[in-house]
Amino acid sequence: MEFDPSRLKYDANGLIPAIAQEAEAGEVLMMAWMNAEAVSRTLETGRVTYWSRSRQAFWIKGETSGHVQDLVEMRIDCDSDCLLLLIRQTGPACHTNRRSCFYRAVREGVEIEIMAPMAASE
Amino acid sequence: MEFDPSRLKYDANGLIPAIAQEAEAGEVLMMAWMNAEAVSRTLETGRVTYWSRSRQAFWIKGETSGHVQDLVEMRIDCDSDCLLLLIRQTGPACHTNRRSCFYRAVREGVEIEIMAPMAASE
Repeated sequence: MEFDPSRLKYDANGLIPAIAQEAEAGEVLMMAWMNAEAVSRTLETGRVTYWSRSRQAFWIKGETSGHVQDLVEMRIDCDSDCLLLLIRQTGPACHTNRRSCFYRAVREGVEIEIMAPMAASE
Repeated sequence: MEFDPSRLKYDANGLIPAIAQEAEAGEVLMMAWMNAEAVSRTLETGRVTYWSRSRQAFWIKGETSGHVQDLVEMRIDCDSDCLLLLIRQTGPACHTNRRSCFYRAVREGVEIEIMAPMAASE
């Protein structure tokens, strides 16, 4: 069946959550949001494009930083209300310069950092 | 710093998205929602507990099916508005009896199934 982005289930703001996972290593790097047009653009260009809720604008991931996400495969969940993006991440995914946005963990009731920012050369 | 679920950023409905990832294999299994109390219960019991938006009730994953999720570690993203749950999944995570809810992929513009339901014994 031909994939139609308009058949996905979007929230009241017209958005669907998209989880970015490193295709090879399997690391979950971040979660952001897409509207139907961002889904289409991501598939068409192979360059992951989110919708920035804060800026209310398309957000081609890495467009300014160079930390782009190349799409390997888009997957859809059972309820069609969440996307999983298998990607190849250049550099850090997180704006804090860490590889993943999920760099804090709860261990024995305490919140700790488990990941350092990447060096500039990485 | 002691972890305080009330410091997470919840949406207008008081919910935060939580991604469940198999701790060993790294497979992303599903995404569901938690409120602050569900976050607390999950940490206290070690049994992943979501908030069901359709039933408007706590949803101890696998309580009726036996397909429970045991928490290995809870991680928090940079913006404190998304959780990553490293878990051990018993049986299928998806209500369709598939291991993962993300069992459809878009390949060359076509939506295909890439994962079959699990056998009863699995």
